[in-house]
Amino acid sequence: MPSVESRLRELGVTLPEPPKPGGAYKPTIIAGAFLYVAAQFPIENGELKFQGRFGENLDVEQGRAAARLAAINVLAQINAALDGFDRLVQLIRVDGHFNTTPDFDQHARIMDGASELFNDALGDKAGHVRSVFGHASLPVNLSVELMAIAQISG
Amino acid sequence: MPSVESRLRELGVTLPEPPKPGGAYKPTIIAGAFLYVAAQFPIENGELKFQGRFGENLDVEQGRAAARLAAINVLAQINAALDGFDRLVQLIRVDGHFNTTPDFDQHARIMDGASELFNDALGDKAGHVRSVFGHASLPVNLSVELMAIAQISG
Amino acid sequence: MPSVESRLRELGVTLPEPPKPGGAYKPTIIAGAFLYVAAQFPIENGELKFQGRFGENLDVEQGRAAARLAAINVLAQINAALDGFDRLVQLIRVDGHFNTTPDFDQHARIMDGASELFNDALGDKAGHVRSVFGHASLPVNLSVELMAIAQISG
Repeated sequence: MPSVESRLRELGVTLPEPPKPGGAYKPTIIAGAFLYVAAQFPIENGELKFQGRFGENLDVEQGRAAARLAAINVLAQINAALDGFDRLVQLIRVDGHFNTTPDFDQHARIMDGASELFNDALGDKAGHVRSVFGHASLPVNLSVELMAIAQISG
Repeated sequence: MPSVESRLRELGVTLPEPPKPGGAYKPTIIAGAFLYVAAQFPIENGELKFQGRFGENLDVEQGRAAARLAAINVLAQINAALDGFDRLVQLIRVDGHFNTTPDFDQHARIMDGASELFNDALGDKAGHVRSVFGHASLPVNLSVELMAIAQISG
Repeated sequence: MPSVESRLRELGVTLPEPPKPGGAYKPTIIAGAFLYVAAQFPIENGELKFQGRFGENLDVEQGRAAARLAAINVLAQINAALDGFDRLVQLIRVDGHFNTTPDFDQHARIMDGASELFNDALGDKAGHVRSVFGHASLPVNLSVELMAIAQISG
């Protein structure tokens, strides 16, 4: 089984420094065999990307790219919290929250931009159930917000 | 204590084949003593039911029926993941996500359509804290989306 | 390390009776080393406070106060479930759900009203990752809804 690190290399993904929390909270919490990751966004080198709303100024392809970028930040947080991916057992759950107009209905296609990255990078550790939602607004007008929970070993 | 199976029979509920995931994810994940269920919708025999928005084309009674139908799919997923309900310790948490207009405010009454089904079917295993939200949009214009976590035994 | 009780006293916070569930569910669920708290709202002495919508009739300062009030109810639920705070290991995750107009973007500042109360009251048990969302509607036109998960000892 190739390592997560070699899979990421093959995908051409270099994990960034994980984004700092935007408020009075922690980026990750370890509780027993579980790792909780704070909300991750499409942020690259400290810059907010893909601001706006699906059904308005953003389309599904941009959504897939935004979800993939947020997913890379999820992986960066896991990597930083666990000092690599050896202790990762599996991704348990990822919730995809999108900024949408009331008539948008392509949430699943956007979310696959995140799920496919997780599947490609994590292989048999990718697991994950998921949900998708269309919000009235997201913080600082971002279009994608991902919440993730992972199972880890001791 | 009557079994969940006999309770379901008494309620006239036959659990369907659990709906297949609508994307690159898993329907359920077991992590230690916890079972995570992917988002469940008002889907019956592969058909989307109760599409639309509360406060627009759907009323509270339809909402209760939609939430109950999504709850039956939650039970179908638990049943399939655990091969029955013997290993179910309790339902921990259920989140009710609804597609609503901005002025809708009867979320709790809709959600009781799900909670009451869980209470009737699961008896002393029904447990569950919950939340309810009104979204700008949900995938493929569905009106109800349920997320569930359960505690299980080894 | 000062106790949570003495910290609350210093903050001038008296924990109320925890609000009763507004439907067919439980206020808290203990599952192994985890405590799940049902949705908490800005409710004081049984009265709904800060009803409405951010970007419409409520501003950020009112939002901080609403989030703080909902956070006090989270603490009241934890206190009632664990008979004090000795068994609390850490707050794991808090999700902040806000009722907003589509153009609202100050979710993080509102949520800090809750996070700062948790940090001040719980000290090194405050932990918590978080998320923030802007909803189309919340139950009974409330403006803030908090979901919390905590780690506990046996």
